[in-house]
Amino acid sequence: MTTQAIGTTTWVVADGYIPPGSTGPAPAMTSHDSICMLNAGSDPAHVTIEVFYTDREPVGPYELTVPARRAHHQRINDLRGPEPILPGIDYCLVIRSDRPLVVQHTRLDSRQAENALMSTIAYPASL
Amino acid sequence: MTTQAIGTTTWVVADGYIPPGSTGPAPAMTSHDSICMLNAGSDPAHVTIEVFYTDREPVGPYELTVPARRAHHQRINDLRGPEPILPGIDYCLVIRSDRPLVVQHTRLDSRQAENALMSTIAYPASL
Amino acid sequence: MTTQAIGTTTWVVADGYIPPGSTGPAPAMTSHDSICMLNAGSDPAHVTIEVFYTDREPVGPYELTVPARRAHHQRINDLRGPEPILPGIDYCLVIRSDRPLVVQHTRLDSRQAENALMSTIAYPASL
Amino acid sequence: MTTQAIGTTTWVVADGYIPPGSTGPAPAMTSHDSICMLNAGSDPAHVTIEVFYTDREPVGPYELTVPARRAHHQRINDLRGPEPILPGIDYCLVIRSDRPLVVQHTRLDSRQAENALMSTIAYPASL
Repeated sequence: MTTQAIGTTTWVVADGYIPPGSTGPAPAMTSHDSICMLNAGSDPAHVTIEVFYTDREPVGPYELTVPARRAHHQRINDLRGPEPILPGIDYCLVIRSDRPLVVQHTRLDSRQAENALMSTIAYPASL
Repeated sequence: MTTQAIGTTTWVVADGYIPPGSTGPAPAMTSHDSICMLNAGSDPAHVTIEVFYTDREPVGPYELTVPARRAHHQRINDLRGPEPILPGIDYCLVIRSDRPLVVQHTRLDSRQAENALMSTIAYPASL
Repeated sequence: MTTQAIGTTTWVVADGYIPPGSTGPAPAMTSHDSICMLNAGSDPAHVTIEVFYTDREPVGPYELTVPARRAHHQRINDLRGPEPILPGIDYCLVIRSDRPLVVQHTRLDSRQAENALMSTIAYPASL
Repeated sequence: MTTQAIGTTTWVVADGYIPPGSTGPAPAMTSHDSICMLNAGSDPAHVTIEVFYTDREPVGPYELTVPARRAHHQRINDLRGPEPILPGIDYCLVIRSDRPLVVQHTRLDSRQAENALMSTIAYPASL
């Protein structure tokens, strides 16, 4: 089993938005934005997240640790840090790590009766 | 808090289409195509957008500014410029900026009773 | 207005599938797989498409031309060539062009009463 | 017809999740996560998959072969190997091959009455 680190250390999510309102049983069907991270390496990854908004200065850092050889799927709704990230507001994320990660961005939108999904590998920035 | 620019200066959206028709309360559930942009740097980004069509010459530039350290989620439906971009027509976008950006393309389609979503990081062209 | 070519000349769609069955008015809501292409350059792009299957040899080439400075959104359902590409069958596509293109892959699935969407920039291969 | 290998040999899916529950006829509308792979080359590709979890050590390798010049769309639900991959659990995948592949990640979620879809080209890691 390999423990080789994979990915890069700066990632961007440009379309951040937590849909305001949900249909169906919580928490599974609660509308959410998520960043899904893999730390395939043998050292813990210390991750900081900055949140950029349309009409005010960025907020952050939000901090979390992804242990060695672990997946970590983080709902933005649940981020603990300087302040909550509110539903219904446009934002972008810059995710930095001291170890290589891979980041995928996924939204579940259950504002209407049936849920919609979207996902993309985030933008890997070589900074 | 960093103000380092991230991304690149030319981006392409190849599947542009504003679904003609919507279900649900406007504007949140109005069918739309969006380009979600991050300017993480310390200078405003001047952005020009060219729209390519199937059967006529490209139209543009559409111009907008993304301030320093700001997110800007732009519905294509709402672009102001040479002419409106109409629903129900296939198009592609070339997005150019004088400062690095990251661009993500998202569509919400509410033509039928429940909305559908799709999203992808746009294509970063190194021109 | 620029006419500079953007993109690359080989692209891959790995998840090809035309959902068998549709709900809603044709052709807009007919289930389909599409490759959305931009030729931003000043010369026509001659495109060949090979279709790879699970249990038999690849089929192709399917040929089409994307004129200079044009978008071309091609439903796979409608490809004309050696043989039709059937609904309900897994496939992959290799798209080659003599001029740079950008390719985005999108599916609309209306097998159930409300449509679902997915989209991703295709994989740009530097061959 | 070309048989040139395309792609790279290490790929990552960061948002792995099999939705627990389905609506509609099996197997087509059964909720699933899939990795869709193209081996465009002239030699079989031997693929190993490692599964990373949130709170325990990775599991693998899961092994499969993609024949020369073939598409292979693999539902994660159906992977045979050290142990089943269970619905309702977050995971990430590292996919390694001895020959170049292209990998796209797609989910169909039919927990609610109408299905939702998401797809992205996986992250190509140059290891």
